[in-house]
Amino acid sequence: MSVANRSLVTIDDLSNGEIEALFSLADEMSDSMSQQCNLCQGKIMASLFFEPSTRTRLSFETAMNRLGGRVISAVDIGATSLAKGESIADMAKVVGSYADIIVIRHPWEGAAKVVANYAGVPVINAGDGGHEHPTQTLCDLYTLRKERQSIKGLRIALWGDLKYGRTIHSLAYALARFGATILFHPCPGLEMPEHVLRKLATRYKGKLKKYEALDRVSEKGLFPVDAIYVTPSIPHQLTMIPDISIEVELKAGVDALYVTRLQKERQARAEEQGIDKDYPVVDKELLKKKKFKRTLVMHPLPRVDELAYEVDGDPRSMYFRQAARGVPVRMALIALLLGAKEVTIPEEDEYSFVPCVDYPVYQRDSGLRCCNPRCVTNQETEMRYIKPEFKIANLKPLTLSCVYCEHEIQPGYIASTDWHEGKLENKKYHSSSSRWIRKIKPEKLVIFDSEAEAQARGFKPSSYVK
Amino acid sequence: MSVANRSLVTIDDLSNGEIEALFSLADEMSDSMSQQCNLCQGKIMASLFFEPSTRTRLSFETAMNRLGGRVISAVDIGATSLAKGESIADMAKVVGSYADIIVIRHPWEGAAKVVANYAGVPVINAGDGGHEHPTQTLCDLYTLRKERQSIKGLRIALWGDLKYGRTIHSLAYALARFGATILFHPCPGLEMPEHVLRKLATRYKGKLKKYEALDRVSEKGLFPVDAIYVTPSIPHQLTMIPDISIEVELKAGVDALYVTRLQKERQARAEEQGIDKDYPVVDKELLKKKKFKRTLVMHPLPRVDELAYEVDGDPRSMYFRQAARGVPVRMALIALLLGAKEVTIPEEDEYSFVPCVDYPVYQRDSGLRCCNPRCVTNQETEMRYIKPEFKIANLKPLTLSCVYCEHEIQPGYIASTDWHEGKLENKKYHSSSSRWIRKIKPEKLVIFDSEAEAQARGFKPSSYVK
Amino acid sequence: MSVANRSLVTIDDLSNGEIEALFSLADEMSDSMSQQCNLCQGKIMASLFFEPSTRTRLSFETAMNRLGGRVISAVDIGATSLAKGESIADMAKVVGSYADIIVIRHPWEGAAKVVANYAGVPVINAGDGGHEHPTQTLCDLYTLRKERQSIKGLRIALWGDLKYGRTIHSLAYALARFGATILFHPCPGLEMPEHVLRKLATRYKGKLKKYEALDRVSEKGLFPVDAIYVTPSIPHQLTMIPDISIEVELKAGVDALYVTRLQKERQARAEEQGIDKDYPVVDKELLKKKKFKRTLVMHPLPRVDELAYEVDGDPRSMYFRQAARGVPVRMALIALLLGAKEVTIPEEDEYSFVPCVDYPVYQRDSGLRCCNPRCVTNQETEMRYIKPEFKIANLKPLTLSCVYCEHEIQPGYIASTDWHEGKLENKKYHSSSSRWIRKIKPEKLVIFDSEAEAQARGFKPSSYVK
Repeated sequence: MSVANRSLVTIDDLSNGEIEALFSLADEMSDSMSQQCNLCQGKIMASLFFEPSTRTRLSFETAMNRLGGRVISAVDIGATSLAKGESIADMAKVVGSYADIIVIRHPWEGAAKVVANYAGVPVINAGDGGHEHPTQTLCDLYTLRKERQSIKGLRIALWGDLKYGRTIHSLAYALARFGATILFHPCPGLEMPEHVLRKLATRYKGKLKKYEALDRVSEKGLFPVDAIYVTPSIPHQLTMIPDISIEVELKAGVDALYVTRLQKERQARAEEQGIDKDYPVVDKELLKKKKFKRTLVMHPLPRVDELAYEVDGDPRSMYFRQAARGVPVRMALIALLLGAKEVTIPEEDEYSFVPCVDYPVYQRDSGLRCCNPRCVTNQETEMRYIKPEFKIANLKPLTLSCVYCEHEIQPGYIASTDWHEGKLENKKYHSSSSRWIRKIKPEKLVIFDSEAEAQARGFKPSSYVK
Repeated sequence: MSVANRSLVTIDDLSNGEIEALFSLADEMSDSMSQQCNLCQGKIMASLFFEPSTRTRLSFETAMNRLGGRVISAVDIGATSLAKGESIADMAKVVGSYADIIVIRHPWEGAAKVVANYAGVPVINAGDGGHEHPTQTLCDLYTLRKERQSIKGLRIALWGDLKYGRTIHSLAYALARFGATILFHPCPGLEMPEHVLRKLATRYKGKLKKYEALDRVSEKGLFPVDAIYVTPSIPHQLTMIPDISIEVELKAGVDALYVTRLQKERQARAEEQGIDKDYPVVDKELLKKKKFKRTLVMHPLPRVDELAYEVDGDPRSMYFRQAARGVPVRMALIALLLGAKEVTIPEEDEYSFVPCVDYPVYQRDSGLRCCNPRCVTNQETEMRYIKPEFKIANLKPLTLSCVYCEHEIQPGYIASTDWHEGKLENKKYHSSSSRWIRKIKPEKLVIFDSEAEAQARGFKPSSYVK
Repeated sequence: MSVANRSLVTIDDLSNGEIEALFSLADEMSDSMSQQCNLCQGKIMASLFFEPSTRTRLSFETAMNRLGGRVISAVDIGATSLAKGESIADMAKVVGSYADIIVIRHPWEGAAKVVANYAGVPVINAGDGGHEHPTQTLCDLYTLRKERQSIKGLRIALWGDLKYGRTIHSLAYALARFGATILFHPCPGLEMPEHVLRKLATRYKGKLKKYEALDRVSEKGLFPVDAIYVTPSIPHQLTMIPDISIEVELKAGVDALYVTRLQKERQARAEEQGIDKDYPVVDKELLKKKKFKRTLVMHPLPRVDELAYEVDGDPRSMYFRQAARGVPVRMALIALLLGAKEVTIPEEDEYSFVPCVDYPVYQRDSGLRCCNPRCVTNQETEMRYIKPEFKIANLKPLTLSCVYCEHEIQPGYIASTDWHEGKLENKKYHSSSSRWIRKIKPEKLVIFDSEAEAQARGFKPSSYVK
């Protein structure tokens, strides 16, 4: 299957084989940067940034220019057509009729998916709120692969703000897919969100072991490890999964330390809470620890204080290389999506060690709404045409994941279409925690947020409501 | 006459023949988009937007890039050099020494004309306040011509906010010139301004029939028609002009329905006045009416609520095609103004059915000023060098039209240069409503805004002052 | 020595011979503008403007586009990554890994030097606060050379705001280096800063004669001359330097009148102080004076009221030509720094009439800080990695010049490393105005801002402290 004419909204839009092929092309781009300047001649990339991001935007625009294409750019456009009340779908259709490819950054979670649905040309998500930033993840993976040949079996420590950093969520999924082991070192209060952990455990089927406060091994100057994720791709570990030992893991050394800054702009109260003061600094001292001896120090940048300048000259420091490699990676991506380059996708079996599980989709209009106020489905201008849609991520408890922003809701009430078709007296709803949740086939399921909603749609409470 | 090296400030800067030639070139561009990428190689377009407009700017920049030219872009520059007190004439001279062509959007009415006067290179008006937006009009006309082959004789309904929509004013003039019949469906309170109607009647010499409140034929869900304009280009109708019947016209069906949104940004009080609530929505239901059976639904975009999303898939919906066609139309325009393409202009006689009347110019400095506070001639930074200038649009009552913004003033007092040259005792002024208005030759006319102004210049009241 | 791969942070980064070679290349660019469009093909210029400046930015972007290169542009980025707390060094490293050359404008003085230190690619300073704007100076010099063949011996009057206009400081140094005579006509209260005058006198070794209030020759409508600077490059004048006579000088006529606007944005209180009202206007009347008969009227633009529009048509008016010539000058500069063009640098002896003196550098960490709050070394995000560094500009009084922003400090206390090495009892500090200032070798000097600082570092007061 060709990558041409597709969009990249989440990292899951590319298979492992496609990612490997993209990386090979990035190697080629990197080796002959100055010879690519006719590859996308005559093509136009629209760079639409509804949120400021100089670095990411310039990286994309550099990539397109290095390919010989042209760029039309709209920066900080929150205040213009949006102010006139236009929807992003309309914007996508219009810009899609101008440009050959669209790069979008938007503060609303799920916005890139909407743009991809309407643009009619390939769309690349350059960050949609706290949701995903898949090209950052590609740069991260590319650096790991470049420095360590293969990601499979690497031990990657995620460090700091694991809650608000969107790059960290995409990266965690990708690491799981490529068979890495993940050590979670969150800043207390900024742990990895539950839904990310659940997705890791359910979609990629690795083994997640969490440590409660008391079990956490606290080392001086380090954020404690609060969880370890081991993918099923590592055969010799599969057998020992039940026995993951934090002490053993911590001794084994770390292949990469992925540092994130405190996302102050998403968390206004960090300063008030004093979190910024407790945030430990990755410095020469810390990197002297034995476990970090051969550790790649990575960071999505910009950094603030969490990564000392004295580390910049250290050969283990990868963060400026990560940024620089964004150009060939994005060149490869753009060239592939525009169909300017053909690549051979390696056999899936060989790379896709962790075939992910597809959740069933729930599209019925039963009054459910995503609970995330930043979700694109909850914006006044977008509600006119977007219908909420969910995936059924879990049954016990019933958990729906918004297809746009991946936030989860746990609705309280269910019914079946079978019962009430034509038979009004049978039109009853039950608690979603009752046994009916397993009895109703997913395609027959009707889900309600509240009893009021169920009743408004003509359902009556059954005896399984509590 | 070649179009090369000229500017497009108002739609009247291009003759009908030139517009037809431009459309033929746009067809050519459209058919071989990817082969135009060397046409303007080495040329630079400056895109100067003093007001945000992502859509229009990206359309122009796409066009120039598709032609192989380069773009330098300044967005939202209201706050920079202007803040330093620079005039737009200075800005025009400087940027004109950098670029080969300038595209300007500016909130001041008449600003594009000033830029065209000083830049030394072709200038395209991309919207000057509420005045004109001629390339939007070109896109509109191009869509009509593309879908209906000829504009002559089409019946076009203008819908909604006819007061503040600058696109609608340019479009009305252009439709008159191309021989269309216009049906005015204004939102009550947002009727077409008097000066536009007067210009239609006097410059293009068509027949305008207005309907007073009681005569208006109100149909459910429709803005009532308050005026019909029939151009003299339609021979069989010329004879029946005295008998235009609203009922007959309304039955005849509509070729295009041109919908506009409520221009909230130009009319802060719309919400207060509740106009936004009464604004009817063009939806499936409305388009079921027999008269709309073969109607092209057009809209300059962005839309808000006035055009339902459910209509998007309807084959009559043209608005996204209008936007997409902006690219080849602007490509053709830029290529022509830069002299990169030569075209044969069709004979004027054949196309220019409505030869327009030229008003006499009034350039004398007699203290007259344009009354429009948004006119470029009334801005502090521009008054240093711009002299107000007017056209005499009407004599009874005496009506002057500002050459920059086309707003009208009706000055109260007049005199003649003949009478007082050398003879002080004869230096008298009269009321502009007196019979002298017809006796003084236009080139001898001296016009005053007030008696005080006349007297300050040494004139005494005649007996024809009241 | 090739100019390729170097940066232009201050005008002193180019020798006179290099400037002459650059001007020859600019002539070539100017004569065959349209044939340069492949010279920098495949190269990318990053245009980073942390302060708005439409004119300068568009000039650079035009230049790069005319050379066939590509531009990535970030405008008004003060609010984005900086808001995230990123340092400009990090920004420089990242953007330097994308682009082949960087143009930077930044409000912090010395910022361009920091960017040049970290970018890894050539950097052009497009204005760093009130410090320097060397390409403006190149345009100014180029216009003088173009109109008068040689700058040597020209008499240039600097007019108006000599305090805050950064262009005027760079220009003064450059004029000194090229052997011009400078007449200072400051607006009272906006005289040339002392450090600029000192640098003129000490680095370029010309003769500066200042006139006190009573001596100033006041002519009607003119700012009075308050100083004259004569370079040693003019042999016949060297002998008469002691006798510079203001009357003689004023009669001799002026080759160029360099007008500046009142920099209101840097001097909020100008309006309060009424300076803006006293600022004389250069108009037809003033230019009728005999001394201005053959004077080139120059201005860096934008102008406000200090230069009347009526002068625009005068053949002596150069300001729009200055702006237009910015394009070939910047084309030449970019092509040279990118190594896309090789030039022969004329022999230094022939052009560099005024070999400048190099001040010794003081790099010791003894607690000294630049006193300029706008200096890049005093910014919170930059203090993490920049160490203050100074040049010793003068000994009596001891004057250090910040290597970043060139502001001067006059620290009060000194010591010698000789005395105290190993001998604690000798670790004493003295007043910097004592005779020890000349006895301690520059490389042994330790300098303190305060007695407290000296004592905190273990020094004791000597008897030469007062």
